[in-house]
Amino acid sequence: MNDLVRRLLDGDVRAAARIIRAIDDRQPEARDLLKALYPNTGRAYVVGVTGAPGVGKSTLVDRMVDQLRKKDKTVGVLAVDPTSPFTGGAILGDRIRMQRHCTDDGVFIRSMATRGHFGGLSQSTRSAVDVLDAMGKDVVLVETVGVGQDEIEVVATAHTTIITVVPGMGDDIQAIKAGILEVGDLFVINKCEREGADRTMQELNMMLEMEGRHLRDEGWRPPVIKTEAMTNTGIDRLMAEIENHKRYLYENNREKLNRRLRSKFRTEVLDQVKLAILEQLLGNVEESGELDRMVEELVSRTSDPYTVCDRLVQQLMER
Amino acid sequence: MNDLVRRLLDGDVRAAARIIRAIDDRQPEARDLLKALYPNTGRAYVVGVTGAPGVGKSTLVDRMVDQLRKKDKTVGVLAVDPTSPFTGGAILGDRIRMQRHCTDDGVFIRSMATRGHFGGLSQSTRSAVDVLDAMGKDVVLVETVGVGQDEIEVVATAHTTIITVVPGMGDDIQAIKAGILEVGDLFVINKCEREGADRTMQELNMMLEMEGRHLRDEGWRPPVIKTEAMTNTGIDRLMAEIENHKRYLYENNREKLNRRLRSKFRTEVLDQVKLAILEQLLGNVEESGELDRMVEELVSRTSDPYTVCDRLVQQLMER
Repeated sequence: MNDLVRRLLDGDVRAAARIIRAIDDRQPEARDLLKALYPNTGRAYVVGVTGAPGVGKSTLVDRMVDQLRKKDKTVGVLAVDPTSPFTGGAILGDRIRMQRHCTDDGVFIRSMATRGHFGGLSQSTRSAVDVLDAMGKDVVLVETVGVGQDEIEVVATAHTTIITVVPGMGDDIQAIKAGILEVGDLFVINKCEREGADRTMQELNMMLEMEGRHLRDEGWRPPVIKTEAMTNTGIDRLMAEIENHKRYLYENNREKLNRRLRSKFRTEVLDQVKLAILEQLLGNVEESGELDRMVEELVSRTSDPYTVCDRLVQQLMER
Repeated sequence: MNDLVRRLLDGDVRAAARIIRAIDDRQPEARDLLKALYPNTGRAYVVGVTGAPGVGKSTLVDRMVDQLRKKDKTVGVLAVDPTSPFTGGAILGDRIRMQRHCTDDGVFIRSMATRGHFGGLSQSTRSAVDVLDAMGKDVVLVETVGVGQDEIEVVATAHTTIITVVPGMGDDIQAIKAGILEVGDLFVINKCEREGADRTMQELNMMLEMEGRHLRDEGWRPPVIKTEAMTNTGIDRLMAEIENHKRYLYENNREKLNRRLRSKFRTEVLDQVKLAILEQLLGNVEESGELDRMVEELVSRTSDPYTVCDRLVQQLMER
């Protein structure tokens, strides 16, 4: 077996960092490393945490790490930062808050930042989860910034998905409905010291009732939990509810868990295949000059984007 | 020429609605309609408005429509709602606020909701902009919910892109950096009656200075504007700044505008081509049963996602 993978399986932090970097940079050897380490995955419990910018996800994750460490669980944290489409830079700001765990061997924290040319952030994140899993972490926390489709996909493949909001969204709370209500297993109202926490709680509960999640999901009614991560308020309850959800998934001969796994793998395979196809077919289009010529036709209005696209697709599929 | 397209060019609202529906549903005839109407596009001024849920984008857009109508500009509004990945439902909530424009012939409002199997929301939106443009609308306002990559792509192809925030984001304001700072031509602090508006303004201005946008973008330093859309405060200033940005784009023999067009078309062509390739190659994979078999191998752990993906890609590319 590859030496890097063997070191990873022994829990070597540097090996983990190197493999994750290879994934994040989309280096070709990453796939072989992932194939080699995969048989050692499947043991970690994966928790996704998402929500709009500013809801305090990082502090929440920080507190969750504290609680898990108190119970002697080893923890991997993946902070997923959408990359700027122009500069390639990532937000690293509040990562700093978690630095106090840096000297703790039982915690491994990484930021995923790079977004490949054709997307692939959710795929890279899933692969990085595999690395932390193979490394032997008991729990992997995946924190994503943002509420877009990509971010939803990233957390939706976790065992337990936590949606974080803050009070005072008023009538705008309906806005979080978009795709989020359906993927959340737990809802957290963080910064609950702020005005409007009770109202937000009522509204969320009402929306969950209306959606009938408990009917569709065989009895799991996502709880809504008030927290104030800064003062460590409500974190015990949150951890207990994660345990409840885990128990719920594993009861009844793992059938529910397998259904979730099926959906996760389906997404993962389609995602990987899409990425691979686009890279193979479109990888060189930008460099070839063909795209530039087409763009000039469009700027001068001698053709339209629909005709130009048909032509390019035909060329690519014939190669 | 197609009768539907002829009616559209005459400004027929029902023709516009039908073509946009065809685009949104990804009906095959949509492409021919778009090719036929395209020569009549290129006249509308496109303004994108984005920001996190709850910042009051709809009210802001509503006020902008008022101001444009006062100046006798005809207006098209596209409200882009990310579709729920599970139920296919869209948020239509605050669309209702704009209903008072319904009896005004000079305003045409549509929601884009459906997300194709392989994404494509940004492509559908660009096509819908073409429809409103060909229909003769002077200004097209594109409002997107969310701050994900897709939403950024949607608004980034507008002539003027407005990023909306609310006061009181505290240190978390850095979170809006992700990709957003670079695409914003104007920044709006809405709900500026709330505490912390001045601090948010300072922080945004500081971030814009640090980023050096005015250097990279040849002199355009994105202004930060305080508004309170509910009471119509600051909307005059916002409209004046949109005009300023438009003048800036059109000065110097349209060179800047052409550069923007090039980048827009490049994104559009790649986006369309990706979508077409994925539909052609992956369109039937889910139905074929092959994917189901692979998923079962993964659930039983007799294979790994990376090996399974390699196999599927090989099969698809050989067809």
